[in-house]
Amino acid sequence: MRAVDLIRKKRDSGEHSREEIEYLISAYTRDQFPDYQMAAWLMAAWIRGLSRPELAALTEAMLHSGEVVDHSDLPVKKVDKHSTGGVGDKTSLILAPIVAAGGLAVPMISGRGLGHTGGTLDKLEAIPGFNTFLNLNDFKRVLRECGMSLIGQTAEIAPADKKIYALRDATSTVENIGLICASIMSKKLAEGIDALVLDVKTGSGAFMRKEEDSVALAEVMVETAKRMGKKCVALITEMGQPLGQFAGHSNEVIESIEVLRGRGASDLRDLSLELSAWMFYLGERTKSVEEGRALASEMVESGRALEKFRECIRLQGGDPRVIDDLSLLPGARGLAEVKSPSGGFVADINCLDLGIALAMIGGGREKKEDRIDHGVGLEFHKRIGDAVQAGETLATIRYNAEGPVPAAKKMIAASYHIGDKKPPSRALIRRVIGG
Amino acid sequence: MRAVDLIRKKRDSGEHSREEIEYLISAYTRDQFPDYQMAAWLMAAWIRGLSRPELAALTEAMLHSGEVVDHSDLPVKKVDKHSTGGVGDKTSLILAPIVAAGGLAVPMISGRGLGHTGGTLDKLEAIPGFNTFLNLNDFKRVLRECGMSLIGQTAEIAPADKKIYALRDATSTVENIGLICASIMSKKLAEGIDALVLDVKTGSGAFMRKEEDSVALAEVMVETAKRMGKKCVALITEMGQPLGQFAGHSNEVIESIEVLRGRGASDLRDLSLELSAWMFYLGERTKSVEEGRALASEMVESGRALEKFRECIRLQGGDPRVIDDLSLLPGARGLAEVKSPSGGFVADINCLDLGIALAMIGGGREKKEDRIDHGVGLEFHKRIGDAVQAGETLATIRYNAEGPVPAAKKMIAASYHIGDKKPPSRALIRRVIGG
Repeated sequence: MRAVDLIRKKRDSGEHSREEIEYLISAYTRDQFPDYQMAAWLMAAWIRGLSRPELAALTEAMLHSGEVVDHSDLPVKKVDKHSTGGVGDKTSLILAPIVAAGGLAVPMISGRGLGHTGGTLDKLEAIPGFNTFLNLNDFKRVLRECGMSLIGQTAEIAPADKKIYALRDATSTVENIGLICASIMSKKLAEGIDALVLDVKTGSGAFMRKEEDSVALAEVMVETAKRMGKKCVALITEMGQPLGQFAGHSNEVIESIEVLRGRGASDLRDLSLELSAWMFYLGERTKSVEEGRALASEMVESGRALEKFRECIRLQGGDPRVIDDLSLLPGARGLAEVKSPSGGFVADINCLDLGIALAMIGGGREKKEDRIDHGVGLEFHKRIGDAVQAGETLATIRYNAEGPVPAAKKMIAASYHIGDKKPPSRALIRRVIGG
Repeated sequence: MRAVDLIRKKRDSGEHSREEIEYLISAYTRDQFPDYQMAAWLMAAWIRGLSRPELAALTEAMLHSGEVVDHSDLPVKKVDKHSTGGVGDKTSLILAPIVAAGGLAVPMISGRGLGHTGGTLDKLEAIPGFNTFLNLNDFKRVLRECGMSLIGQTAEIAPADKKIYALRDATSTVENIGLICASIMSKKLAEGIDALVLDVKTGSGAFMRKEEDSVALAEVMVETAKRMGKKCVALITEMGQPLGQFAGHSNEVIESIEVLRGRGASDLRDLSLELSAWMFYLGERTKSVEEGRALASEMVESGRALEKFRECIRLQGGDPRVIDDLSLLPGARGLAEVKSPSGGFVADINCLDLGIALAMIGGGREKKEDRIDHGVGLEFHKRIGDAVQAGETLATIRYNAEGPVPAAKKMIAASYHIGDKKPPSRALIRRVIGG
């Protein structure tokens, strides 16, 4: 088999056999053909598309390019959640403790933030000492001890994805449903899970802005997981505005602790409980999603979820006192308010630009190498549909360096569209795929 | 400007500005972005296509990536011919002496053979001592002294094309009209010519098998040349069977000398004279193509073209005695005849496979690194439409190594399709584009 022939086949809209896909991935991972040939294949695949069988083969080949974690010593079901990302999306920090407290195991291999979206690992690293670089043995040990563990992708996990993702980033071949699906699913299934709940975002702050695109991605991912013998469901959820009231790393840890105390913003709480409920159901902990909802609420109300979070922080080297003393988290020195130029109702929000404004003040990465200031953040005072008066505060910027604040302020102000009429309310959870 | 953005634009079927194309070519040539980004762009361009203005900009950017030869000290018009290649196509060796003898200058930068097609440089190198590696100064000197010079692409000529062509070869992005056009025209226009005659082949031995594809390529090339202020015409010509009676390097030099002596196969003679006629006309040496034909014939009949060839051989370091003593050319030790298995008429020929059979016996390259045996060759005794008896010889193989002969014999025999009826005759020159 030769790379040029496989490139030509995909260029001419051909369908690859399982063997061809396996060759492509395993030979590339072992440096047996150069980046430029993979780049040409990726562009051909981006434009021509991948069939469902090709996609399953690709996902499987990428999955088996590395280690699949073996949790057979753990007697409970292993479940995880993956979100396609957005602004203020901190549900992992809430649902992992809930589901672990409820008796399932949550082995979560997460990512970092880039561009306007935040990353779970970065948020956890706002907690002093929290180590997201556990090796697979320590990952399994923490999981065994407290039922949850959150780490970054290791060299053993889906190395093909790591190599291909870097190349896609540099060759404008990222935004393709098939390639996204294979990338996500190969990593997630390498966690050794029995079931997966997907949170596929839609709207101005989502990777996929149009609901139909989000649904298409969700369908492909659910089908791929099922082809590989895993239980899977996808919730299509609103990302037309930030999730919860806060964005930024310390901010989001604080808000997560608030929700685990039974407080916090209702949209964040509702979505976290709903995702937990599906995890309980797919993990066969409850007989229905409804029962899952009750169990999730119970884990919050009893304080058991919060204790689970504290335990995980301790086991991963973090300072567990942050749970009771939020001042131990990195903070911000300055506050700046973004005022509404006119009165009316918040008609729409450009959520993408809110994420970019956060990155501008240091709370995100424009490039992979950028360092994050965990202390800075944004607080959102108005949601879509809220009434607002001229001069009223729309958002508060919590900053450490003053330089980028004026530009961020301008960007945030322009993100809010104020109209005369109250817009129709938007459902937080739009659809469930594969349920 | 960033490579990723240009890749994305072409991926999404956008049209590049002239500045974008210039950045892409000049930055890539100076190694300012890596091969994998160019590979992704090439695949996007292959699939999405290039508009005529993009193509003109690409050709010009590639042309100006290196030196454009300056012949302003030469008082005559500079004209050249380019063929898209085929089996037995040795017209360059015939028309360059004719046109130089007729008073124009022919600065010809040629290529080497690959796969089933032969290359002018390789053919010339069958002549003992002939040096195709002249630098640009010597190239200009020989041109000044005898009106013609034939060399290979130097490092100074269109370096962008050299780099991009190697990448296209490895990424299955060769067969695309726009990219082919830019590659050919950037090199040809770097010769510093006033006019160009294109010989675009069609049929089973051509790069483009379907006439409509050949016409499309011809139209794009002619338009691109004219946009750049050059006179240009394209002849669409038959390559459904070998041109002339011989293929192989010494063989083709001998056949060229025969035609320059006023003998040789009529198809080869007719096409060489016709291409010469157009070169005379576009180079403003004659007032019409008709007059060009007369002048070309006169150059052959008077022996002046043959003398011009002898002079050029001498100036480029070759042994000019080959003109009168063909035994000085490398030869072949063995002869093998390919017989017709049945009687009837030659209904069709798979000309591609004849070229491959020649490469198999050492008279061509399967890979760029392969060495050529200049002495081996094929002689074709039957053309399409000829009557043939069972057991009659279709072709003779002239070989040096016996090993590959049986397989070559089999391949050649299978290339001839013998039918019951005489097929309709095929025109040698199908169409003239831009005339």
